[in-house]
Amino acid sequence: MLRLVHQEGPTTRASITERLGLARNTVGVLLDALVTAGLLAERSPALAGTRGRPSPIIDTVPARAGVLAVDLAVDAVRLAVVGLGGRVLSRKEWAHDPEGSAEAGVATLVEVLRDLARRRRRAGAAFQAVGVACWGIVRGYDGFVYNAPNIGWRDVALGAALADGLSARAGGRPLVQAISVANDADLGAIAEFRRGAGAGARRLLYVHSNVGVGGGIIDQGHLLAAAGGYVGEIGHMTVNPQGIRCHCGATGCWETEVDERALLRAAGVGAELEGKAAKDAVARVLADAAARERTASAAVRRIAASLGAGLASLVHILGPDRIVLGGYLADLLALAPSTIRGPLRERGFSPEARDIVIRPAACGEDAAILGAAEHAFETLFADPLAVVA
Amino acid sequence: MLRLVHQEGPTTRASITERLGLARNTVGVLLDALVTAGLLAERSPALAGTRGRPSPIIDTVPARAGVLAVDLAVDAVRLAVVGLGGRVLSRKEWAHDPEGSAEAGVATLVEVLRDLARRRRRAGAAFQAVGVACWGIVRGYDGFVYNAPNIGWRDVALGAALADGLSARAGGRPLVQAISVANDADLGAIAEFRRGAGAGARRLLYVHSNVGVGGGIIDQGHLLAAAGGYVGEIGHMTVNPQGIRCHCGATGCWETEVDERALLRAAGVGAELEGKAAKDAVARVLADAAARERTASAAVRRIAASLGAGLASLVHILGPDRIVLGGYLADLLALAPSTIRGPLRERGFSPEARDIVIRPAACGEDAAILGAAEHAFETLFADPLAVVA
Repeated sequence: MLRLVHQEGPTTRASITERLGLARNTVGVLLDALVTAGLLAERSPALAGTRGRPSPIIDTVPARAGVLAVDLAVDAVRLAVVGLGGRVLSRKEWAHDPEGSAEAGVATLVEVLRDLARRRRRAGAAFQAVGVACWGIVRGYDGFVYNAPNIGWRDVALGAALADGLSARAGGRPLVQAISVANDADLGAIAEFRRGAGAGARRLLYVHSNVGVGGGIIDQGHLLAAAGGYVGEIGHMTVNPQGIRCHCGATGCWETEVDERALLRAAGVGAELEGKAAKDAVARVLADAAARERTASAAVRRIAASLGAGLASLVHILGPDRIVLGGYLADLLALAPSTIRGPLRERGFSPEARDIVIRPAACGEDAAILGAAEHAFETLFADPLAVVA
Repeated sequence: MLRLVHQEGPTTRASITERLGLARNTVGVLLDALVTAGLLAERSPALAGTRGRPSPIIDTVPARAGVLAVDLAVDAVRLAVVGLGGRVLSRKEWAHDPEGSAEAGVATLVEVLRDLARRRRRAGAAFQAVGVACWGIVRGYDGFVYNAPNIGWRDVALGAALADGLSARAGGRPLVQAISVANDADLGAIAEFRRGAGAGARRLLYVHSNVGVGGGIIDQGHLLAAAGGYVGEIGHMTVNPQGIRCHCGATGCWETEVDERALLRAAGVGAELEGKAAKDAVARVLADAAARERTASAAVRRIAASLGAGLASLVHILGPDRIVLGGYLADLLALAPSTIRGPLRERGFSPEARDIVIRPAACGEDAAILGAAEHAFETLFADPLAVVA
């Protein structure tokens, strides 16, 4: 019930009863308990759209429960406080120390989170969780970061460090009731499924690329995390044994053929660029292609074809009913939709595969942060009254 | 409870109570109901292995509930009656009519199944189901066969035809209480998970090859069927754009690099052979490789390397914790385990991926049939008393 209001926004008792398929009495009892716990509140509707006595509107109380969501991005640590209901209440951002160790980075993060959590607890927050998005290989069950190449972390027990640094009690409760660390692409998939272009998909394949390629699969509402604990890495499926060497050591990984660096190589410009200069060069190639400049258009077509071929393989392996493309892949989709679709049209074995829905991501840069928040809220939804009691 | 005894064989009340984590009373009530329904029976143990009063043994009653499991194999239609408990009670096999249409083939199948189901009903069967394994693209929810290239069927409404032909009532019940049609590799995965080398895996990747490559994924006990209705087709992931043309129209599909035909090509023998002659040629190459003959060994190594590379991609995409290899891939595994493991060792991002367990399939030629039976039994396990009432 709490997840429903969190996800779909203000609603009424009648609508909740209908959506959950529960008896009215049951809904009443649960609702009263959630209102008493301060997680939901009832208010009079501002506009009475129907005749008769207007139904009170039920909404979340964002200040009462929230997630400190963190994105360990390549350029900076980005933090957002996401309240129950999914609204971003505040933000904070700081640059990585280029000279600093992973330990120092973790210590800074713990300190910021502890301060923030203490202040929010004093302001009345009953549930607090931390959700971290990390570009790299993360073990889901304990948040161990095996490798986060963009920030140079290897074998960092991030989950344990957070648990340790946030283990204090405050106001009669643990300062933080849940900690989760997960792969950013998996979290992006969750965000798009819950609040973006993946809503309603039975099996969503989310593919994201800027530098490198990541992705996640949401099957019937659940993240298909790797059974071994670590996430899968769709960017490293081999698509071309005659291709170029990948940073992972293998040859012809999909990401070497479809990410931004591949686009720059295909366009013959600035393949050696990094950081902001590379970003700008990518934007120029995309703009040139939109203006039908020949070299840029050919480069976009070539990358779009490789993207489509990889998607066709993934559709054959995974059988999704929807694909959402994030990062700069959304731009490619806008520029060359039929080239991306080509391999699926030619090679799809079934009408469903040939005509699969492909959409651009809708959560933008916030995808990983929103996903981290959704992931961390799960602890609350699993048993809200126990958690805030 | 019924599934437990079906799957693990004769047991005791105490063991059931422990395994299911239910109260002893609850187990007693449910057990008595299943015994009354004739699905389970208690008998005295033949050998009393422990002191004191020996516990009665609880076992399934195979004649009381069974599946008519059918494998639409390339050479013949193979049928097995699989009783509750998983034992094959009888078999039947007939050749496809090479001149006959798909409609005629379906009609023959319906007739055989109806006869058999009627006889078994008269002999006391309370639950009967039909499970069909089909090499090709099948829509799970209604058993529509989109394409079964090995027997030349296209767009055959097999599920509907079976439902129609077996719709009679007999002995106060529907003649057949469940019908399922599914892809043979998906069913092979189920069989290996339930009764073979995949038992206990959290996420099982099953890969099978003789002619062509198929596979299935069992995640936490459930088949990961395609969301669109049709199965995935891992044999058609593109692994080599410079490879050869696949029968599907694409170039460099995995199956063109790892199936038996690929082995014959690599060994430079009999690539033009078909049927039994091709089988014999494959057996000779494998035997020669086992005897360390140079050409055959090189061919096996080459195919094993391609197999390993594809498995590495699938591990990156799917994150399984176990791989089971069926068909002639089990022979490759015996001959060249380290070559198959090579790409995983080199490219695996995590210890779990690098050291993933790879086992040969254990169900042999019966995998598809046993899987079809397990799949069809699910209707019984979901609500046994309602089904046989």
